[in-house]
Amino acid sequence: MVLEQAVITIRPGTGREFEYALSEARGVVAGAAGFVSIEACRGIERPDEYVLLIRWRTLEDHVEGFRGSEAFGRWRALIGPFFASPPVVTHLATVLGDGGAP
Amino acid sequence: MVLEQAVITIRPGTGREFEYALSEARGVVAGAAGFVSIEACRGIERPDEYVLLIRWRTLEDHVEGFRGSEAFGRWRALIGPFFASPPVVTHLATVLGDGGAP
Repeated sequence: MVLEQAVITIRPGTGREFEYALSEARGVVAGAAGFVSIEACRGIERPDEYVLLIRWRTLEDHVEGFRGSEAFGRWRALIGPFFASPPVVTHLATVLGDGGAP
Repeated sequence: MVLEQAVITIRPGTGREFEYALSEARGVVAGAAGFVSIEACRGIERPDEYVLLIRWRTLEDHVEGFRGSEAFGRWRALIGPFFASPPVVTHLATVLGDGGAP
């Protein structure tokens, strides 16, 4: 399993609308092949910064599958308008722990 | 619940020892009041970068409780020697999702 971490800075003051758009966009990404789970978190120190933690079966499921799909266009159309700058996306592999909350 | 995210860059080539130290350090933090769970992830694009995702009952459990405790000294003594630079720590609140893997 691979963890995609996307750090997203939104335009100030649009948090409420962004979270609503995210809840819609969740349905889009959740239908992708290899999708495992999504968690969206808001910064406490920086409330305009969000971190999306999306788990995929494999790296390819995200990078080649989802990003190359028609669904990715819909995902971006929903949440992209709130971005203040391009998201910073990295991929991680769990080396310790159970992959989340108990 | 609050998610602590610590981004740690280690000295190149010390990943194996760092992960061993982390598995020891896990026992230290797991005993702290308010500790919920820990997940450690290694960067796929940047293998010298780790992200620790530590869940706490409250922000204070981490910032005032754990950081002010004797256990924090032991935690840092175990993993600190591998740091290439000071960790970047932020706190996040989950706004969407179930808090981790299914």
